[in-house]
Amino acid sequence: MKYTSKLMQDAVEALSTLPGVGKKTALRLAIFLAQQDASKSHRLSSAIQDMVDKMQVCKVCFSYSDSEICEICANPARDQTTFCVIESIRDLIAIEETQQYKGLYHVLGGLISPIEGIGPDKLNILPLFKRVQDKKPKEIIMAIRPSIEGDTTVYYITKQIDTEQTKISLIARGISFGSELEYADEFTLSRSIASRTPYFIKDNSAV
Amino acid sequence: MKYTSKLMQDAVEALSTLPGVGKKTALRLAIFLAQQDASKSHRLSSAIQDMVDKMQVCKVCFSYSDSEICEICANPARDQTTFCVIESIRDLIAIEETQQYKGLYHVLGGLISPIEGIGPDKLNILPLFKRVQDKKPKEIIMAIRPSIEGDTTVYYITKQIDTEQTKISLIARGISFGSELEYADEFTLSRSIASRTPYFIKDNSAV
Repeated sequence: MKYTSKLMQDAVEALSTLPGVGKKTALRLAIFLAQQDASKSHRLSSAIQDMVDKMQVCKVCFSYSDSEICEICANPARDQTTFCVIESIRDLIAIEETQQYKGLYHVLGGLISPIEGIGPDKLNILPLFKRVQDKKPKEIIMAIRPSIEGDTTVYYITKQIDTEQTKISLIARGISFGSELEYADEFTLSRSIASRTPYFIKDNSAV
Repeated sequence: MKYTSKLMQDAVEALSTLPGVGKKTALRLAIFLAQQDASKSHRLSSAIQDMVDKMQVCKVCFSYSDSEICEICANPARDQTTFCVIESIRDLIAIEETQQYKGLYHVLGGLISPIEGIGPDKLNILPLFKRVQDKKPKEIIMAIRPSIEGDTTVYYITKQIDTEQTKISLIARGISFGSELEYADEFTLSRSIASRTPYFIKDNSAV
């Protein structure tokens, strides 16, 4: 594309390096940034800069953090005896959103994938083993997405953990709320029947 | 959403102010920016900052520019006798892409829209009249999208220009390349028949 401004061209090119942002969208974003109140655009550029310059990775759980140890690991109110193993920080944010889980996390930073050349050594798996040895948690919840890579990773980790000392559990696999049975894949549907849970009525309300 | 890093939260919030970017997309972008090579993320944030701080609006045609007068207005090789009136800088970039037009531009910065309270005084229309008076162009091409606002704007401008001195033309309206006649709206289709152009064969190739 041709621009009347090199400054705009540079901004469009930088914006179009973002995932899912093509040249036309980048141009739309650049014009928006140029037209809106300059202080707002400054806030965006400095928020990006600050994040890139100052954000750290928590030494314990490998989530993002503003200090050496993240807020969750540093919070004594969290259940120190349960670890939730997840692929990425996005899963952490999704689980925290539910407000159901009160334990700690461990971010692997990916899943084992021989095809893509990702071995256990490229993930935060060794630090997990060390952490489990040190802290001896009662339970590790594997909140890993069902997939070849996910199952491989869960298997690899479980194999090397003393399950006498630490219980390993998997998040339930089944039919999502609001989805149609007929569109569920065979594997998920058969699993949801095999892993059926007892239905009971408590205090006159179905649970 | 809950974040383990305030820095990330700030970046996500700033990114989600962009048009078409929701919280989940903003999070994906923030993680991408945090994970990629820091120099690339720095380049993005400084490209935005530089553009916002240094980019100017051309005093002549109101497109974006790195100096007082934009590259197109300052280029003596461009046809100084033809002005192309457009709604926004995006239209300028689209027209430049075609490499067909060699004249000058005039960016209105919007279209007249009584419903949205946009009168001629909020657009760069008075400077256009002044420019036409000063430069007496041979032709003004109205490259304005067909719409109520577009037609109103074209009418308003044309009414006040001395058409003895300056020819006014509209970009052709008709069926787009690759589109189906049956899906064209009635107005466009009838217009495309009314404005039919002679078909002739030159040098054995259809033109």
